[in-house]
Amino acid sequence: MEYEERLLEYGRKTDEALRGCFSNKPAHCGLFEAMEYSLMAGGKRLRPALTLECCRVCGGEMEKAIPFACAVELIHTYSLIHDDLPAMDNDDFRRGKPTNHRVFGEAGAILAGDALQTAAFEVMLRPESGRGLPPERVIAAANTLAKAAGAEGMAGGQSMDVACEGRGLTITDVKQIHRLKTGAMIRASAEMGCIIGGGGEKELAALGRYAEKIGLAFQIRDDMLDVEGNVETLGKTAGSDRANEKITFVTLLGLEECRRQVDQCTLEAKDALRELPEAGFLCWLADKLAKRNK
Amino acid sequence: MEYEERLLEYGRKTDEALRGCFSNKPAHCGLFEAMEYSLMAGGKRLRPALTLECCRVCGGEMEKAIPFACAVELIHTYSLIHDDLPAMDNDDFRRGKPTNHRVFGEAGAILAGDALQTAAFEVMLRPESGRGLPPERVIAAANTLAKAAGAEGMAGGQSMDVACEGRGLTITDVKQIHRLKTGAMIRASAEMGCIIGGGGEKELAALGRYAEKIGLAFQIRDDMLDVEGNVETLGKTAGSDRANEKITFVTLLGLEECRRQVDQCTLEAKDALRELPEAGFLCWLADKLAKRNK
Repeated sequence: MEYEERLLEYGRKTDEALRGCFSNKPAHCGLFEAMEYSLMAGGKRLRPALTLECCRVCGGEMEKAIPFACAVELIHTYSLIHDDLPAMDNDDFRRGKPTNHRVFGEAGAILAGDALQTAAFEVMLRPESGRGLPPERVIAAANTLAKAAGAEGMAGGQSMDVACEGRGLTITDVKQIHRLKTGAMIRASAEMGCIIGGGGEKELAALGRYAEKIGLAFQIRDDMLDVEGNVETLGKTAGSDRANEKITFVTLLGLEECRRQVDQCTLEAKDALRELPEAGFLCWLADKLAKRNK
Repeated sequence: MEYEERLLEYGRKTDEALRGCFSNKPAHCGLFEAMEYSLMAGGKRLRPALTLECCRVCGGEMEKAIPFACAVELIHTYSLIHDDLPAMDNDDFRRGKPTNHRVFGEAGAILAGDALQTAAFEVMLRPESGRGLPPERVIAAANTLAKAAGAEGMAGGQSMDVACEGRGLTITDVKQIHRLKTGAMIRASAEMGCIIGGGGEKELAALGRYAEKIGLAFQIRDDMLDVEGNVETLGKTAGSDRANEKITFVTLLGLEECRRQVDQCTLEAKDALRELPEAGFLCWLADKLAKRNK
């Protein structure tokens, strides 16, 4: 369980740093409280773990990537809050808890998301985050995150998802939506770690390809779990896709073909790492995600 | 009219660069269209002008500050879109045009705001923006904007404003809300220009103080115009504050005392610049803002 322990350690390091972002903050009528509510709601910290491990694999000190790992999680959390809003997916539960707007109201949730996005950039760009790092790496890593989160990445994917609701989608459409909506951020998590760790073009390409493949596998598995899973393990309502008549990988491909594609993507992810030394943890993580039940 | 011409030139430079941000973009189900709709809705480009002029005053090349001037306007535009949402101020018109959510729907407006915020950081951190600049300046300027836009600045102020609606507010509360909600960004606009232009501690403090004072004067004047103005010159509904029973500088101080405080702040703004050479334009701008009718 060496790798399992390392994954938990990355999660603890991220949690600790994230908590530090919000200590001793003034209570602006509850804004920080709303931000912290979703940030500390028990996320798996998968993206930060990728950032920290990719930094290490590229020969960098893991600790130096912590602010960047936090930034990824801050952006991820903001996106979940906004996606859950009544005007978007209108979800009542997330990770087994009432969604942000159910607790803090719509205005509170919009602002908490907004401020979490800003905090992601603030954390990466504060002077102490760059200590001991070439400033060019800080800029390149932060820009990588900005590109992945914005209109040509995550926000663009969410926009397509909302706009295409109720329309007939092909497998190509669904792959494109997820490549932008979730894939871009997972890829950026790995790339940022590589940049901070001092990786070159070869490492950046390999880790980027690895992350893209596990990102796709992750999303296909997510759609499978919505059919197979139950509310206790998922922390959200299982079967919600079908109830919403949502077009997913499962409705387009069927469970069996989904399983096959998850396995194929996982193989390709591991194959992308074949020229990198020290890729054991990342290979283990790809397998773990392919088999997850929640 | 030399200064008037310079102000227009700054606006043109900003518009041109902002248009460049969105040329040749894929049509992700209308996201870029929604972003551009509000970004190009005829804003006064006051904040970018401050960034560009403060860079010049500190001895920098104005052109180098353009991506940072764009970033300020991108953040400002995102905040207007989100502030207008039904869950916030529920405004139907902005700058004489239907608000973003009236045209693109609530989900579209939330996402357009989100993606505009991300674009602000992407623009500052892209490789070409840093060309010919020490990377430390890029990081410091981008961090200044992040701090001003986030939970301890603009978003915090908006949160206080929303949460305090309908409560009894003192003049101290109203000043604090505006210092965060609008003042922080105006101050950051000036400071970013100073940082990019290579200004030192003395310039940063003087320009920061100047911007804080014109920011306060600007807001008091805004409240006065809501009472004095009419819909044709304002492009929004005059008297909306009174209709919403909003506590403003005018309801707390009266028009006459507001006028006096605008003049006093403007004097203090100009006084802050007394040790800076080349402050003519900024002094002229302070006077112009104090006298504005829209």
